[in-house]
Order: sequence, then structure tokens, then C-alpha cells
Amino acid sequence: MEINVDQSKLAKALAVVSKVATNGKTTLPILNNVLIRVLDSKVTLTTTNLDMAVVDYLPTSKSKNGEITVPARLLADFVANLPKGEVKITTSDMKITTSSGKYKSTMNGSDASDFPELPELNEEKSVIYKIPVEDFKEGMSAVKICASNDTTRPALTGVYFNTADGALFVAATDGYRLAEKKLISEVSSEVKAIVPANTISEVLSSLSEEVEEVEILFDEAEVCFRMGEIEITSKYIDGSFPDYRKLIPEKVDVSLTLKKADILRVTKLAALFAREVGGSIILETSSAEGVLKVSSVANEFGENTSEIETEVSGDAKVILNSRYLLDALNALSEEELKLGISGSLQPVKIENNKNTDYIHIVMPLKG
Amino acid sequence: MEINVDQSKLAKALAVVSKVATNGKTTLPILNNVLIRVLDSKVTLTTTNLDMAVVDYLPTSKSKNGEITVPARLLADFVANLPKGEVKITTSDMKITTSSGKYKSTMNGSDASDFPELPELNEEKSVIYKIPVEDFKEGMSAVKICASNDTTRPALTGVYFNTADGALFVAATDGYRLAEKKLISEVSSEVKAIVPANTISEVLSSLSEEVEEVEILFDEAEVCFRMGEIEITSKYIDGSFPDYRKLIPEKVDVSLTLKKADILRVTKLAALFAREVGGSIILETSSAEGVLKVSSVANEFGENTSEIETEVSGDAKVILNSRYLLDALNALSEEELKLGISGSLQPVKIENNKNTDYIHIVMPLKG
Repeated sequence: MEINVDQSKLAKALAVVSKVATNGKTTLPILNNVLIRVLDSKVTLTTTNLDMAVVDYLPTSKSKNGEITVPARLLADFVANLPKGEVKITTSDMKITTSSGKYKSTMNGSDASDFPELPELNEEKSVIYKIPVEDFKEGMSAVKICASNDTTRPALTGVYFNTADGALFVAATDGYRLAEKKLISEVSSEVKAIVPANTISEVLSSLSEEVEEVEILFDEAEVCFRMGEIEITSKYIDGSFPDYRKLIPEKVDVSLTLKKADILRVTKLAALFAREVGGSIILETSSAEGVLKVSSVANEFGENTSEIETEVSGDAKVILNSRYLLDALNALSEEELKLGISGSLQPVKIENNKNTDYIHIVMPLKG
Repeated sequence: MEINVDQSKLAKALAVVSKVATNGKTTLPILNNVLIRVLDSKVTLTTTNLDMAVVDYLPTSKSKNGEITVPARLLADFVANLPKGEVKITTSDMKITTSSGKYKSTMNGSDASDFPELPELNEEKSVIYKIPVEDFKEGMSAVKICASNDTTRPALTGVYFNTADGALFVAATDGYRLAEKKLISEVSSEVKAIVPANTISEVLSSLSEEVEEVEILFDEAEVCFRMGEIEITSKYIDGSFPDYRKLIPEKVDVSLTLKKADILRVTKLAALFAREVGGSIILETSSAEGVLKVSSVANEFGENTSEIETEVSGDAKVILNSRYLLDALNALSEEELKLGISGSLQPVKIENNKNTDYIHIVMPLKG
């Protein structure tokens, strides 16, 4: 195998793929490696952690076919520290030599045939959606924060892609809060699939500035995200996603229109005093005073109350986890938002003031 | 007690002093607190960890005398999140109320008389030096990296201020490397004192952009760093500092002039391969080839060699810890440097090419 490639392109590609390689956190050492495959002047770099694989394609000015695997992190770090210019990679006897001018390294590789690859996605049998990259980023970031880390309920650790009423939605919930975003308003084909939130994070962090569109392909067994030269393929999460639409309140008792900056500030202030009480803060509306009061439960450190003047249609009170409320507020894209409260036992609904494609629900805490 | 103070000034001052408060890492809870003392329109904020104390003075537009202590981190975070404008602080019955418009908190304080203060420094009996802030920053940062973390040899965990030949020097060594910087070329009074490296770090991180000069006062028991409105007082480290000047080689066998960027790059490349062998890398000069070779010891991952072309007066070889060499290179201020090697058992000497006020020594590793 032999390739001549541009240092900055190679460094960038290795940076992307080496994040998926397990980098020592596995008992299967080959998962620390990147598979380098050269076929007909096309170089592909592949890493996998068995649940997910990432492939990056690279142009090469000169090449000889061949394949090898080599520690991904080490190669990525080495190439990143080389000067700009052409990097030459050659292999011989399971050794890979990387050189650039006076800089040279030899790494011990291992046989490409031992590298576990995910099955190829069946493109012809796939449902395919295309999304402008900015819409994809905003929607995915705003939803995946609600995915759970609790692996005992696998379905909740994913982002649920689902079609309803001719639109494509994504949703996530950890049982304490829920977010849903309408990703594409009109689609003709249907899908229901739970994609690991880890995969979504990897996809988001792999998006480069040159990419304008993300293509998502769902086949029977796998999902694939195509972003320019990079492809991330992932297994689905088995299991059924909760019937989450039932949990979204259609009506709320008291709806407030607030500046995001105001509610963010008072929530942060109250959260400081709530550190010792699991983050509990109290939201209370007073129609007589025309204020939303946000306060922390008094404890050994003291207590805190702030007020926001706003139009208030009724009296309501609810206790929330301040971290969940902060996450929800930070996920909104507009300067103004709607906060819906329906008493101390009902979920709180948080939306942008104008565009209601994104809905965030936070369950109340008991008083 | 009552004060009206500007939010941004108070937030800045609390950010500085709250770093020294122990923030929960102590069995003496009052060390988590900031002492707020108001006397004749002057507000002082004080925190201490018993080894070191920081005092910050604040202007106030309106005040009533008094004093109290209150959790430093909580007050700092609360004030940092308030809007710009005037903040009002009042106390009553060991409670401190902080308010700004619609934002209000009450914190439980404790009695100022329980707060342990360091003894006052005796200014009349002190040796005093004044240093432009940029010289101070550069010198201290370049030296303190060699201080040890090993508390079983307390003297090595400090930075040694000492006068010799009418100049003020600072030095630090952990037994494996050593750095010395001439801080002031001409001084009339003498000093020998070991200041904890932690104190130096705190002083460096407390320097704001408005400060132009650092004043250092050494009395019998304490050192004090004055930087604008901030004063940091610290105990000395007991013990005698090693007679470090003996360790600095006066002559070296082979002296190379190198571009810092070149040697930094090859050291980083070699360090990547040296991770599994404790960071050992090999420096070797060849007068015949006119190169410095930097390589890593071959191990299970592979090996690496780089060359830098330069004028070489002799052949020498030494094994160094790559991390120590990187620290030394990063501490240099010029683009070009002198690297002195005297064989595999002698320390390596690293200096700027022109200004030789800073000397860095790295002991070799055994082959």
C-alpha cells in the first residue's frame, strides 16, 4: 500500500475517525485502530466501536492499492504534528511508515482482515431524507439533551426518528423531561427508528463547515448519516419508544410570554441556592401582582427570590429541577419564549414564542 | 453593616478572593467563607486557607461599618449572575441580604470574630522590591513549572527568592529539572525565602490588566504580593533550598542553536511514541551529518525519528523525559534557543539564544 496525501486533509480526516476508535477502552485491541484501505486512487479511513462506524474518504495524488490497520489515535496525533505539505504513507510486513521531509515514523500495524466492519447499508431499500445542515444541527442539539444515560432502559438512551401527519419528527425523553422537534415538514416516506444519542453526538461533532446538507438513510438494520466525505453508520436501539405524544399537554392553565434572558438569569440565581436540595426551585405566578416569582427552597445556606414582571392570566405554582429548566431554556432559538404551567402536578411546557416546531416538557418535582 | 457597590467591581473582587477560600475542601467550615469588613467607607474582602490569605479593597458609594463572614463561592456566583448596576448588601442577625432591583437573596453568615486572619506583615521591617508586571509574569511562569508536587520534600514545592551578586533571582527544582531567572538586575537589599508555588500561581491568576507593577514585601514570617487593590500574603516554606547553582553546568560539550518551532515539533512527534516508555526520547547530535536527531525508543507501537539540520560541533547523545523538555521549550521567550548537551550522564542546558537571564536544566534519564 502506498499513498501521498495532503497533511491538513489527512489530519482532519484522522481527527474525525479517531474519536470513534475506542482508544484503549476495550478488550478488543483492533477497535483502537483505523482501517486504511486504498483502492483505485481512493483512500478510505474506517473506525468502529461495533455499535457505530465512521468512514472518511480522502483524495490522493499517488497511490498503490492495499490495506492495513494501525492505532488511530497515535497516527492522528503524529500526522497532526507534521508540517503542512505532502505526507507519504507506505506499508511493508505489517509495518506502516509515515514520512514528511525529515520526519519519519514506523508503526506496528495489524491485518486488515481482522477488522470488524459493520454490514453494508442497503441503499436501494432505504428511506432517505435530506436536511439543510443548520436545521439538522439545531434540531438534534435541542432534542438529544433529553436522552437518558440510564442503559437499563435502552430505548430512552436514543433519539426517536418518527413520521406523523406527513412530517418527520425527532424526540427524546429520560422520563423526567421530553423534547420534540419537527425536523422536516413534508415527507413522503415513513420511518420509526431509535438512533443512539451517542451516534447523534458523533455526527454533530463530525460536521465540518463545508457541509451544507446531511443525508440520512434508514434501512432495516442500520442508519447512515452522510455529510460530505464522511459517513457515520450505526445500529438502531432495539425496543419500543414510549408513546410520548400523550405526555405533551395540549392546553396549559397559565401561559407566560418571557424574555429568555430574564428567565435564564433568575433560574441561574435560584439554582445557586438549590445545590444542596437536588436543584429544586419554585416557579410561582401571581395574577394580582403581575409577576413570575422564581425562588429556591430555604436551606442551611439561605434562600433566594427573584421576580419577573409580565402579563399573568392566573395563579399557579410548580417545583422544577433547575438544571432541566436551564437545559430547556438554552435549547430555545428565539429571544422570547412561552412558559406554560398547569399546577404543581402537571408538566411544564416550554416553547419558542413564534416557531412552535420545538416543544420541551419538564415534569414537576414533588413539594 | 451596609454597602452599596458596583456589581462588576464586586463580582471581580469576589472571583479573586473566592479562589483562595477552601470551598468545601476543609474540615474548618469558616475557611469556605469570605470576611466582609466595612470601616470608614472602605470595604475589604478577605479569604484564607491558613497558609495564604488574599485581601481585596473595594470602593463603596454608601456604607455603614460592620463585619460578617459568608460562603465565598455562593456569594461570588450570586453576584456574578446579577445584572450590571448597584448591588446593596445589608446584614442583620448573622444574615446577609444581597439585592439588586427585583433580585434578592438571604444567606446565612457567621461571626467575623471566628475568622482566622494571618498576622499583619511588618512593613517597616520588610525588604521591598518592585517589578514591572510583565517581567514578573514571565519570570514566575517560567520558573514555577520546575517546582515539585511532592510534599515530603517541602522546600522543593516552593519558588526560591534569593539575592546574589547584587541581583534578585528566583529558582525552582523538583530534583529532575531546575529553572532560574534573574528577576531584577540590581537590588540593594538581600533576601532568601522559599515561597509556596501555590501562592505564586494564585498571585499570577489574580493579576488584572490594570496592574502595572507588583510590589513584593518580605518580612521575617511572611511575604506579601501587592497588585493594585489586591494583596496576597503567604507564609514561607520552612527548610533550606538546595545549593542549586552548583548544578548549573558552566560549560557544555556540544552547543546547538535551534529554532524553537523546530525542536518543539520533533519533541512532540517523539513524545507520541514515548507514551508507553515513561516519555523517554533520545537526542543525538552528529557533527558529520550536521544534524540533531530526535527519536523515541522503539516499543510495541513503533518508533519515530526526526532530524533538524544545524551547525554541530561534536557528537553527543542523551535521553530525556519529553515532558520536561517540552516544558522547558515552552518557557523560553525567544524564537531561537541554545541547547547544551554534555553526554548521557550530564544535565542538558536550555537557554534563550540572546537573553541568558533564564536558565533551564533537565537531568538525563538512564539509557
